[in-house]
Amino acid sequence: MDTRRPTIADVAKRAGVSKGLVSFVFNDKPGVAAPTRVRILAAAEELGWQPDPVARSLSTQRAAALGLVVRRDPTVLAADPFFPAFMAGVETALTERRQVLVLSLVPDAAAETATYRSLAAHRRVDGVLLTDLRHDDDRFPLLAELGLPAVCVGRPDVAGAFPVVNLDDAAGLRSAVDHLVGLGHRRIAYVGGDVGMLHGRRRRKSFLEALARHGLDPVGVVDTDFSAAAGARAVVELLAGAVLPTALVFASDPMAVAGLAVLQRQGVQVPRDCSVTGFDGMDLGRHLHPALTTVEADPLAWGRAAATVLLRLLDDGRADDLELPSAALVLRSSTAPPPDPPG
Amino acid sequence: MDTRRPTIADVAKRAGVSKGLVSFVFNDKPGVAAPTRVRILAAAEELGWQPDPVARSLSTQRAAALGLVVRRDPTVLAADPFFPAFMAGVETALTERRQVLVLSLVPDAAAETATYRSLAAHRRVDGVLLTDLRHDDDRFPLLAELGLPAVCVGRPDVAGAFPVVNLDDAAGLRSAVDHLVGLGHRRIAYVGGDVGMLHGRRRRKSFLEALARHGLDPVGVVDTDFSAAAGARAVVELLAGAVLPTALVFASDPMAVAGLAVLQRQGVQVPRDCSVTGFDGMDLGRHLHPALTTVEADPLAWGRAAATVLLRLLDDGRADDLELPSAALVLRSSTAPPPDPPG
Repeated sequence: MDTRRPTIADVAKRAGVSKGLVSFVFNDKPGVAAPTRVRILAAAEELGWQPDPVARSLSTQRAAALGLVVRRDPTVLAADPFFPAFMAGVETALTERRQVLVLSLVPDAAAETATYRSLAAHRRVDGVLLTDLRHDDDRFPLLAELGLPAVCVGRPDVAGAFPVVNLDDAAGLRSAVDHLVGLGHRRIAYVGGDVGMLHGRRRRKSFLEALARHGLDPVGVVDTDFSAAAGARAVVELLAGAVLPTALVFASDPMAVAGLAVLQRQGVQVPRDCSVTGFDGMDLGRHLHPALTTVEADPLAWGRAAATVLLRLLDDGRADDLELPSAALVLRSSTAPPPDPPG
Repeated sequence: MDTRRPTIADVAKRAGVSKGLVSFVFNDKPGVAAPTRVRILAAAEELGWQPDPVARSLSTQRAAALGLVVRRDPTVLAADPFFPAFMAGVETALTERRQVLVLSLVPDAAAETATYRSLAAHRRVDGVLLTDLRHDDDRFPLLAELGLPAVCVGRPDVAGAFPVVNLDDAAGLRSAVDHLVGLGHRRIAYVGGDVGMLHGRRRRKSFLEALARHGLDPVGVVDTDFSAAAGARAVVELLAGAVLPTALVFASDPMAVAGLAVLQRQGVQVPRDCSVTGFDGMDLGRHLHPALTTVEADPLAWGRAAATVLLRLLDDGRADDLELPSAALVLRSSTAPPPDPPG
C-alpha cells in the first residue's frame, strides 16, 4: 500500500488536468469551466487531498504585504508631513484587504539596494511603493532585475515598466504664483526643497516658469533639504539680501511655518508686510495665526491610491497609470496685497 | 521500496536523537557534543536528507520583522508627532540588524484583534511593540494566548509578562507646573488628551497632583483626542469661562500650537498675557514665534530603545525593563510671568 500523502500532482493526474489548473481552482481564481472545476474538486475529495495553507501561500507567491523603503535621515523623516499621512493612506487601502505594510528606513544607497534585495529574496513583500523618485533612478533597473513589482509615487523622468500614480504639484505652485501676482506682488522669492529629488526639482522649475509667464524674475531662490530649520535659515538669508521680497513661496509647510516665525521675530508682519505660501497641506497649517495659505497635495489620498494600484497590479498582472486631482492652492490668511511702496 | 522523501524524524531516529537536536545542528546552534553532531550529519547524509530553506526559516521561527499595530484614525495618526518619530527610532534599531517593521493601522477593536491573530498565525512578525496602552489592556491576554512576544511602550497599569520600556512623562508635566507657579501663575488651565489611553490619563493626573502640591486648583480642565482641532476648541471654551487662565498647559504640541493661534487671534499675546506649554518636543515647536516651551519626550530614542529591547527578548528569551530619561521641560519663549492683576 502506498503510504505517501497525496500531492497536487496526483489530483491533477486523476482529474486529467494540469497542476496549475488544480491550483487555480483551490485559489478561487476565475476562468475554469464548471465541469472541469467539479472534476478537480471530486478528484481531490477522492484522494483526500487538501491544499496546505503554507504551501498555498508559497504557490500563490503572495506575502500579503507591500513594501516601502525610505532613504532619508530618521530625524528628517520624523518631522516630514508627507510620510505619516502617505503611510496612513496606504494603510487604509491595506487594512480592507488584510494586508500589511513592511517599512524600512535606510541611511544610504548601499543599504537601500541591500534592503530591496533582501525583501525580494525572502519574498517578504509582493511589491513596493517608490517614493522620493530621483533623476535617472537606479531603483528601476534594480527592481527589474529582482522581478519585484512596483508603483511609482509621482512621475519618473524616464519611461519605465511600472504604473505611475501621479499627483501634479506643478499646477499648485503655478496657482500660488498667479495668486500672489494677482494681489500685486512683484518681488517674490522661493524657498525650495531638495533638488536631488524629482519633486524638489519640479517644484523649483514650476515656480520659475510661472513667474516667467508674468514676465518676472525671482528676488531670490534658495535650495534646502525641505526641513523647518533649513527654511528658517533661508528666510534669514533672503531678508539680508539687497532686494526685500514682499512674498515668499515655500516648497514645504514646515519651512513655511519656520519662515513665518523668522519674519515675525524680525518685526515683519504676515501678511501685511510679507505674504507666505506653503506646500503640503499639513493639518497644523490651518491652526496657525495667521492660518497658512498653502498648496494642498492630499498625501493620504495619494497613499491610498498608490497602494490600490499596486494591489491591482499584483492581482491582474497589469494596472493603468492613475492621475490624481492636482495639488490645489488653499487660500487662508497668510497672503494679502503687498505693502505700499515706500515714498 | 519506500518512495517517501526522508524527513527530519527519520534522521533523528537513525541517529538516535531527538528531532530538536537535528534541527539544532542544522541551524548551527552551539551546545551539541561533537560525536553527536557527527552522528547526526552522517545519518542525514546516508538518508539523503537536507533541510529545506523554507522549513528552516519556519523552524528557527524568525520572520526578521517586528510588528506595530496602531488603532487610531488615519487622519489623527497622520498629524500626530509621536508616531513618525517613534517609528523612525524603531527603524534605526532594525536597519542595523537587517530587520523590518510590519505596520498595520486598524480602525477598531475587532480589526485590532484580527490583525494580531493574523500576524501570529502567519508568523509575519517575531514580536510586537505595544503603544497607546489602555486601562486593563485586552491585548495582554490576547498576545499571551497567541504566544506572541511583546514589549510595552510605557508602563501598563497591570502587572504583565512583557518587558516595559518606559519614559516617565509625569516628571515633565510636574516641571511645567512648577515652572509656571515659580513665575507667579496661579490661574492655570489644562488641555488634556484622550483619557481612554493610559498616557492621556497619567498626564492629567500628574498635572492635577503637581498643581495640588502648590495648594492650587485648576481654572479649567478639558479632555480631548490630542488633535490640533480639539486643542483649538478647548482654548475657545476656556477663554469663554468665568475665570481667565494666565497659563495653559497642553498635553500635546499640536494642541499647544493650535491653542497659541487661538489666543493670538483673540488678541491675547503669548507670553505677555498668557503662557503656554506643550508636550512632545516636536521639531516645529522650536521654529514657532514665540518658540514653544514644551515637555520633550524624545520619541525617536524611545522607538529605538523599544525595538532594541524586543530584539533582545527574541534573542535571549528574556529582557529587563528599561527606564529612559524622563521627559524634560525645555524652556523657550512661550512662558513668562503672568500679567499684573487689573486694578
